[in-house]
Amino acid sequence: MSKASFVAVDWGTTSFRLWVMDEGANILATTSGPYGMSRLKPDEYDRVLEDSLLKLNVAQDIPVIISGMAGAAQGWCEAPYLLAPTQLDDLGPGAVKVTCASREVRILPGVKQLSPANVMRGEETQIAGLLGQHPNFDGIACLPGTHTKWVHIKNRAIVAFETCLTGEQFAFFSETSVLSHSMADGGWDENAFESAVRSAIKDPLSVPRRLFAIRAEMLVAQQSSAQARATLSGLLIGQELMSVLQYWRGQDVTLIGATTLCDLYSKALALAGAAVSICDVTAMTLAGLSAAHQQGQHADA
Amino acid sequence: MSKASFVAVDWGTTSFRLWVMDEGANILATTSGPYGMSRLKPDEYDRVLEDSLLKLNVAQDIPVIISGMAGAAQGWCEAPYLLAPTQLDDLGPGAVKVTCASREVRILPGVKQLSPANVMRGEETQIAGLLGQHPNFDGIACLPGTHTKWVHIKNRAIVAFETCLTGEQFAFFSETSVLSHSMADGGWDENAFESAVRSAIKDPLSVPRRLFAIRAEMLVAQQSSAQARATLSGLLIGQELMSVLQYWRGQDVTLIGATTLCDLYSKALALAGAAVSICDVTAMTLAGLSAAHQQGQHADA
Repeated sequence: MSKASFVAVDWGTTSFRLWVMDEGANILATTSGPYGMSRLKPDEYDRVLEDSLLKLNVAQDIPVIISGMAGAAQGWCEAPYLLAPTQLDDLGPGAVKVTCASREVRILPGVKQLSPANVMRGEETQIAGLLGQHPNFDGIACLPGTHTKWVHIKNRAIVAFETCLTGEQFAFFSETSVLSHSMADGGWDENAFESAVRSAIKDPLSVPRRLFAIRAEMLVAQQSSAQARATLSGLLIGQELMSVLQYWRGQDVTLIGATTLCDLYSKALALAGAAVSICDVTAMTLAGLSAAHQQGQHADA
Repeated sequence: MSKASFVAVDWGTTSFRLWVMDEGANILATTSGPYGMSRLKPDEYDRVLEDSLLKLNVAQDIPVIISGMAGAAQGWCEAPYLLAPTQLDDLGPGAVKVTCASREVRILPGVKQLSPANVMRGEETQIAGLLGQHPNFDGIACLPGTHTKWVHIKNRAIVAFETCLTGEQFAFFSETSVLSHSMADGGWDENAFESAVRSAIKDPLSVPRRLFAIRAEMLVAQQSSAQARATLSGLLIGQELMSVLQYWRGQDVTLIGATTLCDLYSKALALAGAAVSICDVTAMTLAGLSAAHQQGQHADA
């Protein structure tokens, strides 16, 4: 195989993913594991990283670039936030260096916003990847996930952003709350999803009182687990769309995220009348880390 | 002490409370424990009940009347729902009898509503208690709790009701979600609560995007745990009020619930311009169980 040029790492709250890259930004090898910030103490990151690199036979002189929660105050080493509005080209120069054996390791900063208060760590790198592939991109990116981000991008800068906890809420309601008893069999009913999105868009104020009705519909009318689960998802995504209306109304939205989630947001946005395109999240992450790696090398030169 | 006439039990999801009552509806003795539906199998209820009664020296011929989740399909013995609109005077006659040693034990039904789908178990008995004390009550009762109920009462009947999961959501967000990291020190900031209620009432659609801002305000602006916790509560209660606007706008609202919770809802409703009165929840529960006990005796006569 061709020679490794650098190692890209996306290190989040619950997992880390690592790619060995060549000079042409091709993937030579990859690994991942459930070793995220929530399971690691600050002095355990270097061991996880070195063990993975050893396993993949990566030489000691190959540099590593990391994005995500490893740079949080509770992570490996704090990489102070850039302040929005901020140029994405400042990501690489904003990285902090950490010691890991004799290896050069850099952790990229996140982005913070003062009013309304907001923070991101990881998504900014995916947006840098989007700009790497579409240098003149102006508009709205939506990054659905546990904490979905809506980002306004202009002139290669993050202008403003919002976060909704929709993914975390869905997990709670479907797995832990009283509603979980009505969706224990899993499943998915597409019509129920679309109907719930439509009604949440039409009457978003109704959503808080319609959540418990998901439970009641099973008790009084034999609603299926698949209907319940899809209704919950549709109500929460529809409610989110109406909360961030100013981000997508009359706009094209570029989705960056897991396939299943992008599919749901894409359908919901289409029902709301917005035009959508979808980008592969791994490709964006790698493009962003590659760009930051190159910026770092230029800064050192 | 005077002679025991009957035993009243409020048996919920997480706990049970028992009162030994005399003929004049005075409390002779009381006990409680964490033995709710979520911890008991159907064949364990009788032992919990008899152990409690033995401890309080209650004779074998004293009848027991129970409200709450003990009557759910997953409880002790299913007491089929009454169908709203329903007269509260039908509660006692709708009770199911269960066997418990040689003792007469009755479990009261809950109430269901078909459209929009909804159910209650326990709150209907407290409303029966309200009608026992105010026989001509017409209007709106709000029973704040894990699942807050809003109930329209007319001509001694439950006409319609709504449920919001606000209490369950507050527990999740404050104890488990990413927001919990920003309120780990507990505390309460009254100004933050009122400000959050006001802004949620003014712009309820903003609430989904403002929840994550509670976390971010601590990371970028040193918001205190007390401010974070009170803001969360205010946003969720304000959002609930706007979801059930048709229940309280231009109405007097009677609150039945735990003191702290009634206090919060009372302040929020006052900020929203509604007139509020508060009833003691234990008094309402006992009045409702007493009335149902007497109805049961008449039905037997």
